[in-house]
Amino acid sequence: MNIPSKHIENAVEQLSSLPGIGKRTALRLVLQLLNRSEDEIEQFSRSFIEMKQNTKMCSSCGNISDHEICSICSNERRDHSIICVVEDIRDILAIEATESYKGIYHVLGGIISPMDGIGPADLNIATLVAKAASGNVTEVIFALSPTMEGDTTNFYLYKKLSDKPIVITTLSRGVAIGTELQYADEMTLSRSLIKRQPFQL
Amino acid sequence: MNIPSKHIENAVEQLSSLPGIGKRTALRLVLQLLNRSEDEIEQFSRSFIEMKQNTKMCSSCGNISDHEICSICSNERRDHSIICVVEDIRDILAIEATESYKGIYHVLGGIISPMDGIGPADLNIATLVAKAASGNVTEVIFALSPTMEGDTTNFYLYKKLSDKPIVITTLSRGVAIGTELQYADEMTLSRSLIKRQPFQL
Repeated sequence: MNIPSKHIENAVEQLSSLPGIGKRTALRLVLQLLNRSEDEIEQFSRSFIEMKQNTKMCSSCGNISDHEICSICSNERRDHSIICVVEDIRDILAIEATESYKGIYHVLGGIISPMDGIGPADLNIATLVAKAASGNVTEVIFALSPTMEGDTTNFYLYKKLSDKPIVITTLSRGVAIGTELQYADEMTLSRSLIKRQPFQL
Repeated sequence: MNIPSKHIENAVEQLSSLPGIGKRTALRLVLQLLNRSEDEIEQFSRSFIEMKQNTKMCSSCGNISDHEICSICSNERRDHSIICVVEDIRDILAIEATESYKGIYHVLGGIISPMDGIGPADLNIATLVAKAASGNVTEVIFALSPTMEGDTTNFYLYKKLSDKPIVITTLSRGVAIGTELQYADEMTLSRSLIKRQPFQL
């Protein structure tokens, strides 16, 4: 593509640096932006700068927050003795949306993935181990993705935490609600047979 | 989604105002941005403001340009007697990429679409008619999308231009190169049979 304006080319370059946005999509978005008023574009651009300047990581759990301690960690009504370990901030949003968890979180900031060059030292693991050893925590829930990398991370965390005075649990796996049985993958189906549960009305 | 930071929520809001970007995608992109340095985000944001401030519409053809007249209209080596009418700036990029057109362009800035409330008055048509009547133009090529709206616009333009001293042509339609015949749609196939051309080696 030979864009006849250096400024547009630069904007396309910047937008297509985001994951999953190609040059063509970026151009479409940039031309749409170009139709807006200068004020609107100023607002658009300023939102990213303000976000960067004002957003902090919660010093306790690693969640994003406008304050030093996030709204979940600073909430007295939540159970601070249960910690749910997640890969990413988006996992917190997903779990919070269920409204069925009252403990707190711990964000690893990734999972162990040798292929991507991410090892245990790159993750927020030391503080989790310290919390588990503090005596204030009774349960740690592993809520990582059911992938090879997630399992590797679970295994590593288990090794680090198993001698601490806590219960270690993980999300239950099985056939997703609303899925037709014939479309469930073999691994999931076999696992949900082995881990079958008492029927409850 | 209940994002625990107003600044991030605002950035997500802004990014998801772009067409085709939902809240979830926007959040993924915003969290990726958040990992960058303040300088990089400053650059990212400034690119849109600079684009808006410095990009002009070519006063002759409506193409985007860093100058008053775009690089195509100001190019002496192009044939200024042939005008290719396109809907959008992206169509110019697509045609330029073929390197097989040496005339100039005219950007309508849309096509007639009553469903979207876009009528002839919203488009850059008057200047095209004036150019066609000037005596300096010998041919106008309609290069709009082969859709209902494109055909409507072609028809409207034809009515406006048919009494001018010019030849009016349109892009040839037919089975796309590289397409297997059995997958071509009926309209296209029937049209390409009716408009069959002498075989050339």
